[in-house]
This record gives sequence, structure tokens and C-alpha cells, in this order.
Amino acid sequence: MFDRQLARKAGENLKNLRAKKPLVHNITNFVVMNSTANTLLACGASPVMAHAQEEVEEMVSLAGALVLNIGTLTPYWIDSMVKAGKRANDLKRPIILDPVGSGATRLRTEAAQRVIEELAISVVRGNPSEVLSLARMGSRTKGVDSIHSVDDAADAALTLSQELNTTLAITGVIDLITNGKEIHRVANGHALMGYVTGTGCAATAVIGAFLAVDSNPLSAATTGLAYFGLAGEKAAEKAAAPGSFQVAILDALYTIDDKQLEAGAKITKT
Amino acid sequence: MFDRQLARKAGENLKNLRAKKPLVHNITNFVVMNSTANTLLACGASPVMAHAQEEVEEMVSLAGALVLNIGTLTPYWIDSMVKAGKRANDLKRPIILDPVGSGATRLRTEAAQRVIEELAISVVRGNPSEVLSLARMGSRTKGVDSIHSVDDAADAALTLSQELNTTLAITGVIDLITNGKEIHRVANGHALMGYVTGTGCAATAVIGAFLAVDSNPLSAATTGLAYFGLAGEKAAEKAAAPGSFQVAILDALYTIDDKQLEAGAKITKT
Amino acid sequence: MFDRQLARKAGENLKNLRAKKPLVHNITNFVVMNSTANTLLACGASPVMAHAQEEVEEMVSLAGALVLNIGTLTPYWIDSMVKAGKRANDLKRPIILDPVGSGATRLRTEAAQRVIEELAISVVRGNPSEVLSLARMGSRTKGVDSIHSVDDAADAALTLSQELNTTLAITGVIDLITNGKEIHRVANGHALMGYVTGTGCAATAVIGAFLAVDSNPLSAATTGLAYFGLAGEKAAEKAAAPGSFQVAILDALYTIDDKQLEAGAKITKT
Repeated sequence: MFDRQLARKAGENLKNLRAKKPLVHNITNFVVMNSTANTLLACGASPVMAHAQEEVEEMVSLAGALVLNIGTLTPYWIDSMVKAGKRANDLKRPIILDPVGSGATRLRTEAAQRVIEELAISVVRGNPSEVLSLARMGSRTKGVDSIHSVDDAADAALTLSQELNTTLAITGVIDLITNGKEIHRVANGHALMGYVTGTGCAATAVIGAFLAVDSNPLSAATTGLAYFGLAGEKAAEKAAAPGSFQVAILDALYTIDDKQLEAGAKITKT
Repeated sequence: MFDRQLARKAGENLKNLRAKKPLVHNITNFVVMNSTANTLLACGASPVMAHAQEEVEEMVSLAGALVLNIGTLTPYWIDSMVKAGKRANDLKRPIILDPVGSGATRLRTEAAQRVIEELAISVVRGNPSEVLSLARMGSRTKGVDSIHSVDDAADAALTLSQELNTTLAITGVIDLITNGKEIHRVANGHALMGYVTGTGCAATAVIGAFLAVDSNPLSAATTGLAYFGLAGEKAAEKAAAPGSFQVAILDALYTIDDKQLEAGAKITKT
Repeated sequence: MFDRQLARKAGENLKNLRAKKPLVHNITNFVVMNSTANTLLACGASPVMAHAQEEVEEMVSLAGALVLNIGTLTPYWIDSMVKAGKRANDLKRPIILDPVGSGATRLRTEAAQRVIEELAISVVRGNPSEVLSLARMGSRTKGVDSIHSVDDAADAALTLSQELNTTLAITGVIDLITNGKEIHRVANGHALMGYVTGTGCAATAVIGAFLAVDSNPLSAATTGLAYFGLAGEKAAEKAAAPGSFQVAILDALYTIDDKQLEAGAKITKT
């Protein structure tokens, strides 16, 4: 039922991540800086947070991937993201964007759109309304209000992925990942993740780490989400409330090995 | 001994909070952004942190309450608070102020006083010295050094509440809450809360969430503090040191239901 | 084998810290503000975070020690550090510097060097490459690439400590602490500490708290690191993965008493 090849790829990516321990440069929001750093460390990556315009270009040149996250945004930070992103593009380092709150305020929507326009982005990870808010005026993509079925959602994602020329990772009960041609789905995860702040941002960072070891954005995003979702499932075996659940996710990210990930990844392909 | 009606109100507020899941907009300090967001999620509210002057007005218009907290303050943030607060006032959204460190430095004291002067604030939550620092020159309120008894403290709180035209929630071993007419006291809580950073800020955010479902600032503040204090008591049954205690508070906030809160609230009224 | 006198001093410092509960003023990075505050509270100190140029001088005048940490740096923060540091120097309050990422980008290297040049710093705590990056042009200190043995490292540390006129605390599997004359080593600690973000920053803050009660930077740094390392060891008895380990460190910092620290400190002197 689940795709064996992608499950194997998930295990392989995790193994490579732990062997290479890539530096992941994050320009992210204040709420999740600590939890994101701990998530990356638990995975086996090496996180750094740096946003000063005086140093982002140097920092990203040391990194295997760049994570851009627009929570707690101000204009200075957008400029830092673009500056770091241009250097990352020059150096062919993958970038992942998390458009936190895009669609909720103009500042965030425009920031996300600017980042996508000025940079080559490997993956965008967000919830459905955040991702759909990236559609430009005149887009053929349906809005959130016009999506009435799973098929509508898949159609909208495919169209938008083509228009934005990036891989979209739309997370929810079932995650949908598409590069505009293929669609993957990931059924890993647990409802308690919604009660811990920054789990979406952490998922984005995990994909960022996977991008540092997997040059295919589609499989990096899909396998990263399977790994993070599986950590949520393992955590829920130990914890039934959000405080202890948050602790247990970090433990699970650290403890899960490539064989367990291969066995537990719930990935389908259409 | 404890007030039955306010205990019932506490349970009712918690039930409504979980049903409505209001968005709570926080302009708060860097130290507690993560723990505050997790506190609000564990309660059943939906937190957002946003401080950019370009977006605070839009963001607060989506929210059921606004939480202003002056820790790790700079002048930019004060202006953001005032900007968000004016819109909140226009839209009749309740505001709660946490004057962290007011009285310790001029920047903070003046910021807290400015926020109270320029905005209609529903509740101020702080420790005794923070709250008493809000008294203006010429105030009839006694200073901290002139307070020698529980009765002195109650007198000072009543006077200051009238002068500032806001409800005061002064937290300590026994919390004292007054709207300038009535005085409530809450005996819930645990000494270990003083060993976890941001518990005061978290209490403020919980009251913010309660304000989104209870239009009476006095009962919102009293019942919010009873709920948060009860979570501390439940946490202390599971943990005896601050690391595990912090985790257990989040678990307790999530686990306590309206019936348990009604049974455990230690509220008195004079 | 271990130095009895320094072990006793460790216990004495911890006892004094808990009796005096000094305020420790931190100008530190966004990633670790929360965990640093919790670390200091668990130790028995009283943390405050403040970086506004309008208030850092007032704040540091209330504090027993100042902790400067250059992670997530921007130029504004460097100026704040220098401003706070000058007042601290005037008032004879000890300062500890954590040169996070010095050597990785020019902004950070120059910031760390400026702080050391403009201020009298009691202790610098960092990993070997961070600390060695502080050597000025023309220094007699060997670079990281020229260090091939434990003796090379000790020689480099002694020379650099003399050149910078400060005590260096270089942390690793074995911590090396020197004031340019004597060398101490601390063998406490656990490998899992590398999987929790901010443990280095937390160690720096703990030394900051010890500086507030011990006027000798060498023994304050050595005993602070022994205490923090012992907390890591105790935590590893309870937790085998980084989420629960992080919680257990805070619990251990709170639980360890002066007698346990005296018994567990693994300090040697050469």
C-alpha cells in the first residue's frame, strides 16, 4: 500500500543526514528559534540562527541549506532573507520557505510573494491557506473557499506548484507534496502536534536538513515529513498532553533510526 | 469558604474558551514567546505573535484579545503596542498589560505608564512592585515601602485601580484582583512556579484568553488566575524540580477540564 | 586525584549563590533567552534579559554580574553590550563573554574582539575555535590548525589568556580554564549536552552567576563548569535522548546541593 521506494529513500536520507551533519542556516521567527534548533540537533543536523545583514551571506556560504520563515516578521528580516537567499542561489544551496501567516496580513503575504519572486526556492512548506495565499493576481489556482474536495486541493496544488516553479509541501492530517508533476502524500503525524507551537516550523527545518542531503526537492520534502510525522506518532505512544509530548518528539527524532523510518513511513504516490 | 459562583464561572470560562478557540495576539518579550504560545495552545486558545508596525493593526483585528508585555523592551516595541492597542480599543477588543520590570528602569516604568495613559486597558497583571510602580506623581497610592500589612496592600490596590481606571491583578502567594470596587483573592498556585521563567507572563496570557470569552475583566482575571494556579498545583503532584514542573504545567493546563477547575478554584470575595 | 580544595570551593560557591540569589543581567541571543533564564533560576540566581540602550546601564547597576553573548548578533546589540559593559566596569561588576560563532563570520569575530578591547572581561567561555579566533593579528597564539596535542592546546590557552588579559574557559570533553598562570581542568559533563541547543550559553550564564559570588574568575569559572557538567551527568542517569535530557538538566541544577557538588566535582589543577 505505501510506497516502498520512498520509504527506503526516507531511511537513506536520515542515514546520510547523520553521517554528514550539515549546517542548516535558519532565518526564522523568535517564537521557534529554540525549538527549531533543538529539532535540528535531535535529527543529527547542525543548526545556526543568524539574521544580521552584515553576516547572512557569509553564514549561508558555510551551510548545506537555508531555512526562511516569516513569523514575527519585520521589513529588516525580509531584506536579510533575500540577501541570504541570493547568495544561497549563487552557491546552489537549497532554500525552503515557511510562509507563516501568509494570507493573514499584507506584510506577510507580500513578504512571502517577494521571497518566491526574487529567489529560486526548492520547497515551500505551509498549511493550505498559507500556501494558497501565494497565488498571484490572475493565477489559475483556486482559492481556499473554492476547494470542496481532496481532488480540488490536489488540482490547486499542482497548478500553483507549476506557476511558482517550486515544490509545495502542504501539511495537514494528510500532507500533500507536489513538484507540479507528481503528487506524494504522507499519512504520518498525530493530532497533538497542533497543541505544540512551532511544529510546522520544525517540519520545515527538518525538510531543510533533508534538502542538504537529497538534491531532489520532492523526495526530500516527502521523506522529511514522513520522518517528522513518525516522530509525532512515537511521541504519542509516550505522552498524552502537549508538554510531555513536545519533549517526546525531540526524543523520538533522536531515537528513530533509518530502519525504523523505512518501516514506519506512510508515503503514497499518485 | 471559597466562592461557589466564581468557581462555576471559572469552569464556564474554560469551557467557552475551548469551544471558541479565540485568537490571542501577543506583543511580548523574547524570553517567553515560545512558552507563552505553548501555554495558550494548551489552554485551547490560538496564539499569534506579531510586532511589526506594518501588521499589528491588521493582526489585532483578527484577534479576540491583545496581550501587551514590556519585557526585553525597546522603543520600537512600545510604539507597536500603542498602535495595536488603539486599533484594539476601536474594535472593543480587550487588552491586558504585563508591566514586566516596571519600576526597575525608567524605560519600562515610562512605557507601562504610557500604555495605560494612551489606551483603555482591561486588566494589568504584575507583582506588587511592578503594579505599584504605575502610580503617577501625586497619586494617593502608598508605595511598596509603606505597605506593612495585607490590609495596606488591599487599600493601595483599590486606590490605584480607581486612579488608573483598570482592573489590577496582583499576583503572589495569594493573588489579589480588584476593579476598584470589589476585591477577589485567589489562593491557587505553587512555590515552584517561581523557578520557571515566564510563569507570570503565562498567567497574563491566560487572563488574555479568558478576556476573549468573558466581558467582565474582574471575573476574567480572577478565574484565569485560578485556572493557571490550579495547573501549578496539579503539576507539583507530578514534578518536584523546575524542568519537569514546567512540562507538567503545560500538561495540566491541557488536561484540567471545566468540572475540575470548578472543584479546584480557591477564590474568595470581600 | 581530583583537587579537594577546588571541589570544596564549588560547593561553597553554590551555597552562597542560593543564599544571595544575585541578579544576573544577560544580553544574549534569541535562541537561548528562555533556556538561559530557566538555567539561572534552577541554579538559584535571578535572571534578567535587557538589551535596550535606554536601559542597559540602569539594569546592570542592579545586577551582580553581566553576561554578554554574541549569537544572533546585530550591530545594535554590540553597542548595547559595550554600553552595559562600561557601566559594569565602572561599578566593578564582573563580566563574562560568550563569543558564539566568533571565527565563523567577520561580524561576530570583530564584535568579540571589540568587546574584549573596550571592556575589562573577567571570563571568556567558548569552544576552542571560538576562543582561538580572539587572537589578534600578530598574536603568538597558535591557530586551531596548528594544535596537535593537549599540550599545544594548553600552551595556546596560556598565551592567549595573557595577551587578552582575561580568564579563558575553553569547553569540550575536558574543559580547560586558565588565567594565564594556572591551568584547571574539569572532567564533568556528558555527550548528550551537544544535542541540546544552548548548553554552552547556559554554562556561560552559570559561570556568570558564580562570578557574582566569587571574586576570583579562575575559581568561579572552574567551579561553575564543574556544577553544570555534574548536572549533565545526573541528567544522563535519567534520560537517554535530548528532549528529556534537557528537562533533566534543569531538574539536576535545582536538585544538586553543595555537598553533592563537592563530592562530584572532577577538577584537576596543574
